[in-house]
Amino acid sequence: MARTKNEELHKTRKKQIVAAATKCFIAKGIHSSSMQEICKTGNISPGALYRYYPSKQAIIEAIAAQEHAQNLELIDYLRGVKNPVRGLQDAMPDILDTLLDKDFARLMIEISTEASRNQNVHEVFQKVEDQFKSNLIEIFRTSQIAGHIGKNTDIEGAVFMILALLDGITARAAASAVPSKTELTKSTGSVISALFG
Amino acid sequence: MARTKNEELHKTRKKQIVAAATKCFIAKGIHSSSMQEICKTGNISPGALYRYYPSKQAIIEAIAAQEHAQNLELIDYLRGVKNPVRGLQDAMPDILDTLLDKDFARLMIEISTEASRNQNVHEVFQKVEDQFKSNLIEIFRTSQIAGHIGKNTDIEGAVFMILALLDGITARAAASAVPSKTELTKSTGSVISALFG
Repeated sequence: MARTKNEELHKTRKKQIVAAATKCFIAKGIHSSSMQEICKTGNISPGALYRYYPSKQAIIEAIAAQEHAQNLELIDYLRGVKNPVRGLQDAMPDILDTLLDKDFARLMIEISTEASRNQNVHEVFQKVEDQFKSNLIEIFRTSQIAGHIGKNTDIEGAVFMILALLDGITARAAASAVPSKTELTKSTGSVISALFG
Repeated sequence: MARTKNEELHKTRKKQIVAAATKCFIAKGIHSSSMQEICKTGNISPGALYRYYPSKQAIIEAIAAQEHAQNLELIDYLRGVKNPVRGLQDAMPDILDTLLDKDFARLMIEISTEASRNQNVHEVFQKVEDQFKSNLIEIFRTSQIAGHIGKNTDIEGAVFMILALLDGITARAAASAVPSKTELTKSTGSVISALFG
């Protein structure tokens, strides 16, 4: 019991640190956020911070791991449904809940910027991205073989377009007003249908 | 004659400065690029720089003006064609030539990041964006009245989706490999058809 409690405490501390780092990253950029500032923002002692995350890179890897876990939830869901094109359309409200969150959207912009100048950050997120993409491609190829998607559809191209569209919606959510979740669910749904025609 | 030559010279100098600034912005981020560094990168004397652009904000406004001019070219073209949905599809290879340019794509990411923290930069680009969006909406609404677009199509929503998709393609072009221009022209074409169905 004591051990479980301790594990819970570690988890909570880690979450607090990642939340404080995210706040800093959004406010100042990843490059300009120091470990000291992350401590100050989260009211965390340097000892506690370095115990859980020995470097900013380690925090960034934790953020990437969170993204990976979220991607896997969608992948698991799509693997479990009969028609994953329909499944993706049905999952859109949940996906949009994440993407339209202003803090998430702004964090994604900061990560893109940092990744464009920092090879380590680029690699960490590229790995998550590549995994997600190849899982999606595999799911939709299987669906194509099962006859749910047109024989001539370029699955890889369609997955690229859907991911690009979701990136664009996220970027716009960070900066300005976007259509409602209901409208976006409808329009992304028709784009998904068109791409997997 | 002398005056024309002088004007040409001014234009060339301004272009050189904007090119040097762009190079700095991509390498270090907009926030971290100083006027001194822009001088150094472009081999420009501070006197010459301040004569043309009294501040970094003035350079950013020049970049926004360039973007506005490029948008207007597309708007003029779409206003001149009979069916602008088809016109936009036909213009995709040219549009993609710009968006898939790695330097352009990386500059756009830097601008998004800077705009998320700097209200002045946000406003300058938001204005260009709002103008472009409202021009597109007007063109496609006219086309809808002419019967080229389904009566029930939400024009504003469709324009949002197309701009988001182009943003997403740009962001991906900055970071990693993207499908070929031919493939992207085809798939954006089918998305445009679906949205304006």
